Amino acid sequence: MASIFFSSSRRKILSCSRSPPFIFTLRRLHQPYNSLTESDIQVFSEILGHNPSLLLPASDPIVTAASTDWTGHYGPAPARLLLRPQTTAQVSALLRYCHERRLPIVPQGGKTGLVGGSVPTRAHQEIILQLQQMNQITALDPLMGIVTCQAGVVLQNLQDYCADQGWLVPLDLGAKGTCQIGGNLSTNAGGPYFRKYGSLAGNVLGLEVVLADGRILDYNYRQRNNLKDNTGYKWHQLFLGSEGTLGIITGVTLACAPLPRSKQAAFVACASYNQVLLVLQKARQYLGEILAAMESMDAAIWTLVEASGRHKMPLSAETLRSDSAVLEGGPFFLLIDTHGSNADHDQEKWQTFLEAVQNDILNGVLAQDMKQYQSFWQIRESANPTVAQLGYTYKYDVSLPIAQFQDWIQEMRLERLGPLGRTESSLVNANWGHILDGNLHFNVTTIGEREVQKDLVNALEPYVFHSILKRGGSISAEHGLGQAKNHLLPSVHNEITLDWMRSMKALLDPKMILNPGKFLPVSS
Amino acid sequence: MASIFFSSSRRKILSCSRSPPFIFTLRRLHQPYNSLTESDIQVFSEILGHNPSLLLPASDPIVTAASTDWTGHYGPAPARLLLRPQTTAQVSALLRYCHERRLPIVPQGGKTGLVGGSVPTRAHQEIILQLQQMNQITALDPLMGIVTCQAGVVLQNLQDYCADQGWLVPLDLGAKGTCQIGGNLSTNAGGPYFRKYGSLAGNVLGLEVVLADGRILDYNYRQRNNLKDNTGYKWHQLFLGSEGTLGIITGVTLACAPLPRSKQAAFVACASYNQVLLVLQKARQYLGEILAAMESMDAAIWTLVEASGRHKMPLSAETLRSDSAVLEGGPFFLLIDTHGSNADHDQEKWQTFLEAVQNDILNGVLAQDMKQYQSFWQIRESANPTVAQLGYTYKYDVSLPIAQFQDWIQEMRLERLGPLGRTESSLVNANWGHILDGNLHFNVTTIGEREVQKDLVNALEPYVFHSILKRGGSISAEHGLGQAKNHLLPSVHNEITLDWMRSMKALLDPKMILNPGKFLPVSS
Repeated sequence: MASIFFSSSRRKILSCSRSPPFIFTLRRLHQPYNSLTESDIQVFSEILGHNPSLLLPASDPIVTAASTDWTGHYGPAPARLLLRPQTTAQVSALLRYCHERRLPIVPQGGKTGLVGGSVPTRAHQEIILQLQQMNQITALDPLMGIVTCQAGVVLQNLQDYCADQGWLVPLDLGAKGTCQIGGNLSTNAGGPYFRKYGSLAGNVLGLEVVLADGRILDYNYRQRNNLKDNTGYKWHQLFLGSEGTLGIITGVTLACAPLPRSKQAAFVACASYNQVLLVLQKARQYLGEILAAMESMDAAIWTLVEASGRHKMPLSAETLRSDSAVLEGGPFFLLIDTHGSNADHDQEKWQTFLEAVQNDILNGVLAQDMKQYQSFWQIRESANPTVAQLGYTYKYDVSLPIAQFQDWIQEMRLERLGPLGRTESSLVNANWGHILDGNLHFNVTTIGEREVQKDLVNALEPYVFHSILKRGGSISAEHGLGQAKNHLLPSVHNEITLDWMRSMKALLDPKMILNPGKFLPVSS
Repeated sequence: MASIFFSSSRRKILSCSRSPPFIFTLRRLHQPYNSLTESDIQVFSEILGHNPSLLLPASDPIVTAASTDWTGHYGPAPARLLLRPQTTAQVSALLRYCHERRLPIVPQGGKTGLVGGSVPTRAHQEIILQLQQMNQITALDPLMGIVTCQAGVVLQNLQDYCADQGWLVPLDLGAKGTCQIGGNLSTNAGGPYFRKYGSLAGNVLGLEVVLADGRILDYNYRQRNNLKDNTGYKWHQLFLGSEGTLGIITGVTLACAPLPRSKQAAFVACASYNQVLLVLQKARQYLGEILAAMESMDAAIWTLVEASGRHKMPLSAETLRSDSAVLEGGPFFLLIDTHGSNADHDQEKWQTFLEAVQNDILNGVLAQDMKQYQSFWQIRESANPTVAQLGYTYKYDVSLPIAQFQDWIQEMRLERLGPLGRTESSLVNANWGHILDGNLHFNVTTIGEREVQKDLVNALEPYVFHSILKRGGSISAEHGLGQAKNHLLPSVHNEITLDWMRSMKALLDPKMILNPGKFLPVSS
């Protein structure tokens, strides 16, 4: 029975396990969503206090923009309406009504994701719900470093607010100026400091969630903002990374870390991936507790960023490549970042470290001031926009045991793609990643092409995913599933686990109104 | 309907919310558990390969001991049987059978908990399930610091194994020589290094759980041991801290931290709690990223440990108390611990720190070597056994905003207890805690008494819990609920949250065979 609910062309894989299924009752499985009527809009308008800036019709250019994915990979599927509630009570009232009427909702944060998770999948049917009006930071305990805020706060604003009081938000991303903390939580965003400050989910102390039927769940959000609490099931974790398919996160209480007073960074270049691994081990040894991030960029992405002319590069791939020691795929560039409290100590550690790796690197440049520190990070963060600008990019965000990265890239044998009509110069494989976390961003860009090519997808994806799973990696390390990877879930999890995930969905959103077409594989 | 299931004398509080409840169907609500028969024992014996050391009858002294809580606060409720499966498949087969037959199971780890969570509540009815035979450490990735092991591994063995390869298990407890990682996970154990290394739950990357009906859930346990993975709902977190009421954890994959190569510790004494707060802030400032733990002991517990004669005390409460600056409750003793990679740098940081606090402390002693470092920790860890030996101890493990600790203790007005027939000398209030985490252990010991006194409970608990909740604290920071605090849940969570927790229980353990009488408030 449940298999009908989640049926697809891959029925065999998706059908429910035989032993008693978790799903108890599923109602209205076959009915389509209702269409939005004028009287629905009247109700929304009333809930939002008849404020026209909070309810935008499909004809508004803002709604067109909100319906369009920035990567150009998904849609466009124009939304039917855009709502911008200002309070949790309004979110609750809107959802309760949409639940009763079975109207589909797409929660949307800063819309900076890479898997199409925050734009509609059904043209002219879905309602986008933005929480940008709910952007208050409501409390920060200066002694404990515990901050409470609404979901619509832009990450950078939250970072700045906490930094002013000596605390560091345990998440940083290139998109921080645009993304919202609610979106970060809904996608369980990763970023470069995962190893140093722990996962975002691990730092969530409290959460406020509005369920599909409008009920408000409060897990230590409005009260009891404590680091330690063992008075209940940790159900709030279900919502973190669930991409708005189980509920809408409206507020969070987060544990911050003490703000580092000394930050240092260097770019070093290695001739081979083996040397990268040596440098990583020595960084752990000599930089120790101040090691905050280690980001890798291969020669291809370095060369592209260099060629873009938008950055002053501290090292030149061209020059280094001539070194006879450089092996295939090299040189490899590492951005090593440290966070500490005592600049003298940190600099001494750096000196010892750089001496220890001098035979393992081709060259290295230590940032001389915060301006250069930031410019180093800008180079790393420009990797994604650089390939995006060159053409359609087939992006794979994978986890693998660190030692296997380069082997795996070789295994991809991209020369196979030649027969598909691409010359070598029209295809670029450029890779970067959060190497401390075992997280690689593997990218194939078709220069000058703007549309996805099915033949390439078919040639790439079976290789990529099969090989990653065979090696015990993750096919989505930090970018999530959205509408890009949800069809792959049956290859990742066994039937009992899939069944259990479906049961969570059925329990919390029985009418399937929340972010349809995302996360779980569902028939359209 | 659901309210019948969870009814109790506090029916009003426990009844389900009106809006559509999460619980769909509850079967066999009114039937008692079945009694164990000889034929049941035959089946268990067969599952366990007819190995008599894995199936112990009630008459075995080991079973008597396993049924007895070490604190003496709970039971005794002798178990009907003790089972020691050796594999996940055996756990699965045992549970499947117990589920079919509706036989109650008590999962038990090292039995070092403080809330009676691992001993039976119904005499001669329950089956204790120990996982001590499942004590294999199956993998450790030396480059990533990711360790995989079975649930029955003793924490200290896991620590030693990882330390040999340069990695630190992100959990430490006084009970490490006895407690098992499965128990630590089931109770979401806290400990002193919560701030430094993150919560145990936050470091769990993979989990294997056997459900009540025998199904085995695998969340990135046997495969895909990666730091980052965003391919599913984080349902594994539900089992962490659920005290075996939702499933039996049989294996875990954990993220470790690099092993610190330099450890330093000092005891400092402060005249007042305000000075404690100053020292804490300066420790964050001057010790920075190496600050690993800060443990508080008040004058009462220090004096008791000193009087026990079992420890060489680095400071004397008696001597310090004569200082005119010492305020009520003082002097306060702080054990400050640092973990770093460079002993020279760490010692320099200590020197700067101790200079900065010289006017905020009465005295201080820095450990001169690892032997003294360990002896300092032994003093701190002896707090609990010291009061346990003196008499019955009413223990409250609470979270509070750090600034409020001493105010709150004053508010308890323990002199109220005088009229209950205790002289001042027969009652001791001794407190200690993990101050960096805002976690206080508040203890009232009745010297020489061994049994709980209802009049004292009634005089203490309403004060303690009401006041903690009013101040936004947690009534169970790290010790959990067990059978000691589960009746308080309706005061902690609102009806929607309670309803949701019950629905999780109903979904995963519909016949209520797992650890009955613990965690959720349930009628007996």
